[in-house]
Amino acid sequence: MGSVPATGRRFFCSGVGVTTYELIRAKREGRELTPAELGAMVRGYLRGDVPDYQMSAFLMAVFFRGMTDAETVALTRLMLESGQTLDLRGIAGIKVDKHSTGGVGDKLSLIVAPIAAAAGVPVPMISGRGLGHTGGTLDKLESIPGMSTDLDPGRFTELVSEVGMAIVGQSPQMAPADRKMYALRDVTATIECRPLIVGSILSKKLAAGLDALVLDVKVGRGAFMKNVESARDLAAGLMSTAAHMGLPARALLTDMESPLGRCVGNALEVRESIEVLRGEGPPEVRELSLALAAQMLVLGGVAREAAEADEIARSTLDGGRALEMFARFVEAQGGDPKVVDRPEMLPRASVAVPVEAREDGNVAAIDALEIGLSAVLLGAGRATLEDELDPAVGIELLATVGKRVARGDAVALVHARDDDSVRAVSGRVERAFSYSDAPVEAPSRLLDTLTDSGGA
Amino acid sequence: MGSVPATGRRFFCSGVGVTTYELIRAKREGRELTPAELGAMVRGYLRGDVPDYQMSAFLMAVFFRGMTDAETVALTRLMLESGQTLDLRGIAGIKVDKHSTGGVGDKLSLIVAPIAAAAGVPVPMISGRGLGHTGGTLDKLESIPGMSTDLDPGRFTELVSEVGMAIVGQSPQMAPADRKMYALRDVTATIECRPLIVGSILSKKLAAGLDALVLDVKVGRGAFMKNVESARDLAAGLMSTAAHMGLPARALLTDMESPLGRCVGNALEVRESIEVLRGEGPPEVRELSLALAAQMLVLGGVAREAAEADEIARSTLDGGRALEMFARFVEAQGGDPKVVDRPEMLPRASVAVPVEAREDGNVAAIDALEIGLSAVLLGAGRATLEDELDPAVGIELLATVGKRVARGDAVALVHARDDDSVRAVSGRVERAFSYSDAPVEAPSRLLDTLTDSGGA
Repeated sequence: MGSVPATGRRFFCSGVGVTTYELIRAKREGRELTPAELGAMVRGYLRGDVPDYQMSAFLMAVFFRGMTDAETVALTRLMLESGQTLDLRGIAGIKVDKHSTGGVGDKLSLIVAPIAAAAGVPVPMISGRGLGHTGGTLDKLESIPGMSTDLDPGRFTELVSEVGMAIVGQSPQMAPADRKMYALRDVTATIECRPLIVGSILSKKLAAGLDALVLDVKVGRGAFMKNVESARDLAAGLMSTAAHMGLPARALLTDMESPLGRCVGNALEVRESIEVLRGEGPPEVRELSLALAAQMLVLGGVAREAAEADEIARSTLDGGRALEMFARFVEAQGGDPKVVDRPEMLPRASVAVPVEAREDGNVAAIDALEIGLSAVLLGAGRATLEDELDPAVGIELLATVGKRVARGDAVALVHARDDDSVRAVSGRVERAFSYSDAPVEAPSRLLDTLTDSGGA
Repeated sequence: MGSVPATGRRFFCSGVGVTTYELIRAKREGRELTPAELGAMVRGYLRGDVPDYQMSAFLMAVFFRGMTDAETVALTRLMLESGQTLDLRGIAGIKVDKHSTGGVGDKLSLIVAPIAAAAGVPVPMISGRGLGHTGGTLDKLESIPGMSTDLDPGRFTELVSEVGMAIVGQSPQMAPADRKMYALRDVTATIECRPLIVGSILSKKLAAGLDALVLDVKVGRGAFMKNVESARDLAAGLMSTAAHMGLPARALLTDMESPLGRCVGNALEVRESIEVLRGEGPPEVRELSLALAAQMLVLGGVAREAAEADEIARSTLDGGRALEMFARFVEAQGGDPKVVDRPEMLPRASVAVPVEAREDGNVAAIDALEIGLSAVLLGAGRATLEDELDPAVGIELLATVGKRVARGDAVALVHARDDDSVRAVSGRVERAFSYSDAPVEAPSRLLDTLTDSGGA
């Protein structure tokens, strides 16, 4: 019988008078659970009274049956209340964070947070590590020599107050129920479930004590949401639950069919972020950063409406104040601020080998999932939480969507530890590119903006 | 993170080159798994490489997505091959077992097995214990003083050969993958799932080395299958999978809206079985026993067709040879065979308190689930596997469906340890009866007979 006790069916969830078994069964049958019943599951799980195998069956039932808005709000609150909440009320201003659902080449946090902070919006950012084919902001930052993202809550609060921004990982004290449930979901194929995603994102964010939130919901091959409908559905769920929790929020739906910008890989993405902060870099990265920053400025009360916010964001970026903020932020978290002037200080891979176009044509698509997985294979991401990252490796796109190339032209550069690593991915990177005879226009990254919980 | 390892996503299922995570995900998405993939799950689980929490998520995904016929056959074979199989080929004749999906007052095995065995069909019966509101044959037999159902495989084979029948529990060596998975399903609300039920029943039965199987698929309030469609579906699944496994099978769909016969409770049911074996007892119990026994005689080659089988079964019962077989069987398994002449040797409850009719009328229905649950509350069944049974307690119906009663007439007798126990259930037993002004005809218990895997 392994670790399954014969009495499992009778485990009582304290306070609600029904067994865990009955709660799983109720959800399996599609019944809406009360906040008290969900509390019995979530608190029981955190205490260890509800074993992993009952929670995983419950989560799979949720995957198939979904959750009502009321259940999603209750779940979010339960996960939030399972741990500590930072109190940032002592810091003047409206504290605004940005959250991305994850993509390939998504370095926007590194650009958006400094713009917003430099424009006067305090940014208490809680970020994650890369897992699967998507990168993580913490891994990117840690490619800067000396940089630490492991700050205690007191130091985090101090930096938000003194510098204007800080970026850290979720501490074990914040939303521990979410941490434990997320780890279980990750190994039981129950990640891709709207109410569970909503609860996980918002409970973590709310635990950081923020006042408003901008969401970047990615859609396409390289994102968790593969089509606009599911992304819009997730965005609506996030907005609606945020509204119920009293958290002002806005969401952008953004395209993640092809990698964002030219660089995928930790140090490579920091380098590209610095380029954008200097007023250079790929226009699509710059424009999306400005769009997200503008939303933060509106929510943060620095601008009254979109046009004003856009203007402030642009002048903050073009005036160099965002770059200055980035340097201060890096220094405050232990990194060497000289990196903003000398990106060559960042780790560099031993080899950089070009990948050639298979045919003549216009680049029609670059499969973000394939590029993301190739980067993981090189060591830029993790297949398991224990995997060691190599900050220097990754993939640099030399041709992006719309570019006309001839067969044999270099379309990407594989930055790797050695030639074996290059060989392991170069075919995959080559095949990630598809071509068209007809001219191709690079699509807009910004698909939609949702400014209230009622929709676009 | 509790017991969930960070590396869970990467657990490799040996031999199929995909992770457990990917197999859960594939089933979640509705993909048919290959026998090798299912083998990786089932064998990995038995070995402990696939942890409980991944198996329970997988089983919940199976609950929602189902399994194809090929998957169900593969699952059955994997569970069968996970343990020992008895070799009964040394025993002459076609060995036939009977299996019931479980009901309230279902003592048919105690009557059917002796009829078939006395008529010349060796019966190697593997039975279960009661769990939930349904009783178990092993618990009933053990109410006979001295009786043991815990025989080693050698002794079991010997008794089938020498006596003609034996009834034992599933040994830990038989279908251990089923045992382990069943224990997990029981606490994660994944019992009620056709392919899992089919695999569980057939793997256990096939491990006993039988040649053919008669299935009694119960339908109604007191059964796991609540309506004829789902019962027919389960029966068809059992027949089809049995056919793929080379096991001749027949199935009866039988009614379980009201308790079968008059007695619910272990010793009470043994007493009623002896009455039927003596040619007395409730006609519906007698007729259903004969119908099941006749199917066993046809499958066992003792009769060529239904009419002949019916005749042999009746003459075996009415000639007293089934009662003699029962006595020999009881003695062979350590019980006192005098019980067949002196049923008062069976344990008797301290108190027996009548429950009265609430109104004048004809008994229209007796809710088998409520009677079954009341019996469990009295101590006749188990709410957990550790619960101690009281063999003497139970409920005796004094009025059955169709009977005309006046308000205040005794309609049932609660056999209990003490008056407190009586008080705890008498209202429930009273309300289990419903009445009608119009005359009510007791419905036939036999709803349908399925003789081949193609259907009725």
